Amino acid sequence: MTAKVNRQWRLVARPLANFKDSDFAWREDSVPTVGAGQVLVRNLYLSLDPTNRIWATEADSYLPPVALGEVMRGGGVGVVEESQHPNFPVGTNVSGMIGWQDYLLSDGAGLSPLPHLPGVPLTAFLGLFSHIGMTAYFGLLDVGKPQAGETLVVSGAAGATGSLVGQIGKIKGCRVVGIAGSDDKCRWLVDELGFDAAINYKTEPLRESLQKHCPKGIDVYFENVGGEILDAVLTLINVKARIALCGLISQYNATAPVPGPYNFANLIARRARIEGFLVLDYMPRAQECFAALGKWLMAGKLKYRVDEVAGLENAPTAINKLFTGANSGKLVVKIA
Amino acid sequence: MTAKVNRQWRLVARPLANFKDSDFAWREDSVPTVGAGQVLVRNLYLSLDPTNRIWATEADSYLPPVALGEVMRGGGVGVVEESQHPNFPVGTNVSGMIGWQDYLLSDGAGLSPLPHLPGVPLTAFLGLFSHIGMTAYFGLLDVGKPQAGETLVVSGAAGATGSLVGQIGKIKGCRVVGIAGSDDKCRWLVDELGFDAAINYKTEPLRESLQKHCPKGIDVYFENVGGEILDAVLTLINVKARIALCGLISQYNATAPVPGPYNFANLIARRARIEGFLVLDYMPRAQECFAALGKWLMAGKLKYRVDEVAGLENAPTAINKLFTGANSGKLVVKIA
Repeated sequence: MTAKVNRQWRLVARPLANFKDSDFAWREDSVPTVGAGQVLVRNLYLSLDPTNRIWATEADSYLPPVALGEVMRGGGVGVVEESQHPNFPVGTNVSGMIGWQDYLLSDGAGLSPLPHLPGVPLTAFLGLFSHIGMTAYFGLLDVGKPQAGETLVVSGAAGATGSLVGQIGKIKGCRVVGIAGSDDKCRWLVDELGFDAAINYKTEPLRESLQKHCPKGIDVYFENVGGEILDAVLTLINVKARIALCGLISQYNATAPVPGPYNFANLIARRARIEGFLVLDYMPRAQECFAALGKWLMAGKLKYRVDEVAGLENAPTAINKLFTGANSGKLVVKIA
Repeated sequence: MTAKVNRQWRLVARPLANFKDSDFAWREDSVPTVGAGQVLVRNLYLSLDPTNRIWATEADSYLPPVALGEVMRGGGVGVVEESQHPNFPVGTNVSGMIGWQDYLLSDGAGLSPLPHLPGVPLTAFLGLFSHIGMTAYFGLLDVGKPQAGETLVVSGAAGATGSLVGQIGKIKGCRVVGIAGSDDKCRWLVDELGFDAAINYKTEPLRESLQKHCPKGIDVYFENVGGEILDAVLTLINVKARIALCGLISQYNATAPVPGPYNFANLIARRARIEGFLVLDYMPRAQECFAALGKWLMAGKLKYRVDEVAGLENAPTAINKLFTGANSGKLVVKIA
């Protein structure tokens, strides 16, 4: 028995647009007792991702919705504090679906022990060396299939995934143009990450800017956003263009059905492809991805930025930064 | 010099919705004189296709628009009547872009001599052994990539292309469900062509019927139509589904921008692909296609239907049958 408290955010209402504080209930539960074959993980960092919004929706998507009354689902990293499981000794750092809470009781399924990499902070296992890095790596290379000399456009380019996608595109020899929502973000993309150009979609005429920065048209588009941005890109795609459909964050908070792109028919004229993907399908190939990303990181070819919010209590407000564009880089919550 | 007349339909206005007679002007021109290296083709059958509507639009698509005042562009078959070209002796049957007219003067570029196949009428070279057969063959096999045991859905299933797609799907071992616009068409698909089921989209609840006839979901969708049909299909696609985007006939006559599918985001949850294609890209592989189709035709595995309209003068009204769904099978005009 332990007297520690397990603070939790439980989902109690389905959000209609942005998350509201009242969609969650704060609960202080007792910390569960560890049984045979179980581990108790003290959660350290919680990952906030656009897909959390999908999980809070009634509709069954690629994962079942979080049931009302349950702890909100979320990925993260933590440290094993008590263990009756041979694979997870006390002190092991792990990643997995930790939930929006201080402690996770687990039988080890879905938990991954984290390697100790010198100079690499724990939060990197929520970004570069996580589903984020894998999403960028496999989405771009397996679905987008960029070739050296081609033009790659990335939306949500200053986000955790988008910023990696653009850098991998540069490593692969592409001309890379990012779309982001502030001048600061655009400067970061060009000056620090080496993008060839960046477009502030809030202040620049989107299609004209794309046309200017993509004089040879668009061969690969990595899509995180949807809506008007996708439509503008569709007018400029080259023959045999590939659109890797990673996310459609512009519509996750929509309260009415959102139409697909108006320039949809251009897929025919350009013999182009839109393909959705989920990082879940690539889990068996994680090591291939992390080996490549690690090599590039050590060679100074990859940079990443973590946007760290302090305190589990702030998770419900922090997550909306993803939808207002207020974050830059990987959004995480430092739990305690 | 010849005293024969070359009757022509020239495009003189851009259609707003369906073609109107006033979009065309009837002109009786003299028949051009054949020069060195040229042939005069007497046109026999004109092919009417949904894509004709795209060519009449101002916008540059995969081919430049037909200029106002020019003879309307159209494929067809004819016979060489005069020749100063060694490859096209008088009497040779040819296919190509003959235009909406009695006679074509050509230097031979884009004209293909037709083989003499016993028992195969000339109109088959506007259907099975033409761009239509190639569209069905390569669109289904190269883009849709059906596997035996998978479920294939075809829209515009009683059309020239769709009816071949479904039959090729059966040859490849798929469960095949067609969507068409009348009970007669649906009976033809099931009773004569061997489709497993057919849905009359005008009288049946589309999604429910698809669900009933596709109990294992939809793996491949061959899209000729767009709009609500595509949206219904998108709710039922399986993981890794392939959508071969051949046409979007429901929107060619639209007078306002048409949105893409509302269930677009399902491409992500299902890791599915939509890919546009054009038969033009497959011209170098025509022989591979026609050899396969010819073999299946001889084996009694392929049937096709020709909807023949008499008289070039009726072309402007006949073409709208494609958009009202009044035709069944390949729509052609017997010119003289």
